[in-house]
Amino acid sequence: MQTSTATTASIMAFQSLVNEIHDLNATQALLGWDLETHMPEKGSAMRAKQMATLAKLSHNLMTSAEMDEHLRHLRQPGIPEKLDTMSQALVREVGRSYDKSKKTPLELLQEMVETTAEAHNIWVDARANKQFKQFEPVLRKIISLNQRLAEAQGYEDSPYDALLDEYEPGLTVKQLDPLFAKLKADIVPLLKAIQDSGHSPEAGFLHEGFFPAEKQLEFSRKVLTDMGFDFEAGRLDLSAHPFSSGSSSHDVRLTTRIDEHDVFSALSSSMHEGGHGMYEQGVNPVLNRTPLAEGTSLGIHESQSRLWENQVGRSRAFWKHYFPKLQETFPELKNVTAEKFYHGINRVRPSFIRVESDEVTYNLHILLRYEIEKALIEGSMKVDEIPEAWAAKAQEYLGITPSNDAEGALQDIHWSHGSFGYFPTYTLGNLYSAQFFHTAKKQIDGLEDKIGHGELLPLKNWLNKEIHWVGKMENAAAIVQRVTGEPLNARYFVDYLWGKYGEIFKISR
Amino acid sequence: MQTSTATTASIMAFQSLVNEIHDLNATQALLGWDLETHMPEKGSAMRAKQMATLAKLSHNLMTSAEMDEHLRHLRQPGIPEKLDTMSQALVREVGRSYDKSKKTPLELLQEMVETTAEAHNIWVDARANKQFKQFEPVLRKIISLNQRLAEAQGYEDSPYDALLDEYEPGLTVKQLDPLFAKLKADIVPLLKAIQDSGHSPEAGFLHEGFFPAEKQLEFSRKVLTDMGFDFEAGRLDLSAHPFSSGSSSHDVRLTTRIDEHDVFSALSSSMHEGGHGMYEQGVNPVLNRTPLAEGTSLGIHESQSRLWENQVGRSRAFWKHYFPKLQETFPELKNVTAEKFYHGINRVRPSFIRVESDEVTYNLHILLRYEIEKALIEGSMKVDEIPEAWAAKAQEYLGITPSNDAEGALQDIHWSHGSFGYFPTYTLGNLYSAQFFHTAKKQIDGLEDKIGHGELLPLKNWLNKEIHWVGKMENAAAIVQRVTGEPLNARYFVDYLWGKYGEIFKISR
Repeated sequence: MQTSTATTASIMAFQSLVNEIHDLNATQALLGWDLETHMPEKGSAMRAKQMATLAKLSHNLMTSAEMDEHLRHLRQPGIPEKLDTMSQALVREVGRSYDKSKKTPLELLQEMVETTAEAHNIWVDARANKQFKQFEPVLRKIISLNQRLAEAQGYEDSPYDALLDEYEPGLTVKQLDPLFAKLKADIVPLLKAIQDSGHSPEAGFLHEGFFPAEKQLEFSRKVLTDMGFDFEAGRLDLSAHPFSSGSSSHDVRLTTRIDEHDVFSALSSSMHEGGHGMYEQGVNPVLNRTPLAEGTSLGIHESQSRLWENQVGRSRAFWKHYFPKLQETFPELKNVTAEKFYHGINRVRPSFIRVESDEVTYNLHILLRYEIEKALIEGSMKVDEIPEAWAAKAQEYLGITPSNDAEGALQDIHWSHGSFGYFPTYTLGNLYSAQFFHTAKKQIDGLEDKIGHGELLPLKNWLNKEIHWVGKMENAAAIVQRVTGEPLNARYFVDYLWGKYGEIFKISR
Repeated sequence: MQTSTATTASIMAFQSLVNEIHDLNATQALLGWDLETHMPEKGSAMRAKQMATLAKLSHNLMTSAEMDEHLRHLRQPGIPEKLDTMSQALVREVGRSYDKSKKTPLELLQEMVETTAEAHNIWVDARANKQFKQFEPVLRKIISLNQRLAEAQGYEDSPYDALLDEYEPGLTVKQLDPLFAKLKADIVPLLKAIQDSGHSPEAGFLHEGFFPAEKQLEFSRKVLTDMGFDFEAGRLDLSAHPFSSGSSSHDVRLTTRIDEHDVFSALSSSMHEGGHGMYEQGVNPVLNRTPLAEGTSLGIHESQSRLWENQVGRSRAFWKHYFPKLQETFPELKNVTAEKFYHGINRVRPSFIRVESDEVTYNLHILLRYEIEKALIEGSMKVDEIPEAWAAKAQEYLGITPSNDAEGALQDIHWSHGSFGYFPTYTLGNLYSAQFFHTAKKQIDGLEDKIGHGELLPLKNWLNKEIHWVGKMENAAAIVQRVTGEPLNARYFVDYLWGKYGEIFKISR
């Protein structure tokens, strides 16, 4: 009985400490959102200091004697089994972060936060000037900080494993190398068959004309509303690079970017970020103010965004309903048919920009980044070799060469954020999304028909129930197994690609 | 020599601790700005928790053993004199906050933060519904928290003194009672003379027509730019109640509110908040990340906003230059002359809403609030008696009775913020502003002529140099003495009113 009272007291104090840490982290997320959407230019140096201070205080609490004491007690053999399932998951997840934090020197963490806060504006400028050279010094520093981080965390085979583990717990180079090899083996023949098909859908109409920013935003908001994104618990703003950022299920911020000569890309980004945002909004609110509310892994997170962006947002059924509405909004499209539009947005053509690339070539973009990141972190590539390596790999995998750094190594925000090991989760997301959607079609009566009538809520409700609600109480593998009845299986994604693009391009395996 | 080394080490550690506290406070200011400008509705409960956590951590640092140790060392007799002037001021100001914090129980502080974060939305709803009753329960709680705060801080005569001291160090009921009595004695005859003058400037054109929000915002941004507000170090957004909020001289957020049937009030608010914002932007950046960067007192702060809003923004010279531009922007004004416009915006007519009231009656609004606040805090008035008391005093001082609570006790945001003792600083601001502007006219060659040509930067530069740069290194009394050569003197304000309104209404003392 005495143990039980001590445990109850400990779990309550532990939860309240976890809540405070989460408040600091949520606040930091808001500072980051503000930095990229509303902060005046001159604010960046002070913002860097503020974010560094929050990171330090969060780290201090995470590694405090109080936390140590609680975890020491709550992780004793026999104790976790006595806790309710939420507390069990909390002890497991916070314990995992605690172990990581303990291994991370505070100075390293603060240097990372300060460096990356300043790196943001440098990256924005460098990209505007298309000059990778401008970004090199700060990137060199970021890589060296990541290498120090990997050494501090420890790893078995590659220092890159330590970084992968940040985003997809347990993921290693040993698992990724064969996975990417297999995808390459499956996708290259498909790409070749498509290119040999002689069919090249017209897509000029996507860029011909002027599509006012305000109307695009309004259309995005309408579709997000239909999808079930809750605008009383979230927003959509503009930023240089689209992202989603949540501080609780009740406050989720999406961003998109608009090109007034492109009728599709902002909407597509909005649906993508909406998928992320709806994951955050869909978590059981009881888990708010804890890391259990954050989504179980980046791969699962990305499966939600890719599902809405591609399985839904690039489907024939979706556009059956939405194309007439798009035409109404943008009269420039009056001579285009829904079918022509569907073909246009599914054109397959190797391009420079990852976020604008088609579903077939997308994972080749990830492969390129994966190989470069791994080499940089392992020390076999230097920062000033990136542009050349990028060009060579783009040529090898995609058959094209970027004409400048903005089309190459400066296109993504991730490195300026200090994120290495993040990109591979995009490919995992693609694989998970196909597997989930395959199951959804089996379990939701007439799903495609519903989508074809603009009824998106049945899918949203299914995702809420099957994937979102549980938050981080279950890990990625457990969720995939429970929802789809089997472990991650790349077959669903490959089948999806062959099925869809086989039909469009009239080809078969 | 040993003392000197210990002192150097202590002052450095002290400053870095102060920086962290300031980062937390600046972050909290941003959370508050976001809450009132961008936060989705459902975010308020979580936001309250986040703000409470930041307040707690800031309070913990402020009252930490480390802070105690530094201040104990740095406030020893003989030590302050050895410090540079910035460090001296920092020890003095932080020491003052430390003494206050030590007296404030942490639970009280947290309860205040949580209560007021939730009170915001309650106030917004209550105001929309014009139902003071809705706001009563939370207001009752806020008042009781303020009473507990006053008891904790201690006071000599009235518990209200302890609250006044938060905003205007040293200010007491003993000083305010005669000051307000004197102002009342000077203003009531002026108001009577104006009402007896038989002249009642036409002002219908200010509200007749449709003045699109976007054009109003653009005009406000143009005038703020001319004033010298730095938009690379600040923003202007919309909120229910205009405010300005700065986290450093490099990041200052202004808000205004727009009525599309009112051509003047949003601009006037923007100039007002711009005056506050330019104070924050004008502080020596070396003082950033310390409380010395915050402006020396609310009275001095308000002098800057009122100077731009009234001494400049309601002057004949200003509108000589800007009226033709306003006419261009809003063709509805095409039959109005600059002189007619000047008379219109300086119409004197008792009204319900403080922020829209004229310069003559404004301080009577403050008097009303001062008397109610004092009575509430001293316990001689109950919350449910406010609407009646408000109506009675409005009738007594202004000769009018609000027709609903939105025109009465629900019009101001301050109580929902938990701020009691704040209102009187508005009157101090009016007095200071007249005294400063009187000096500026003597020291800047042809100031009114310059304003008449839209040259506002000489005034801005003078204010930067004389008042802003020093931040909180000097207190209010020292600044007024240094800049104007004498202590606060209400004569300048009264002379200004009689001079300006005597001319408009053709009356004399």
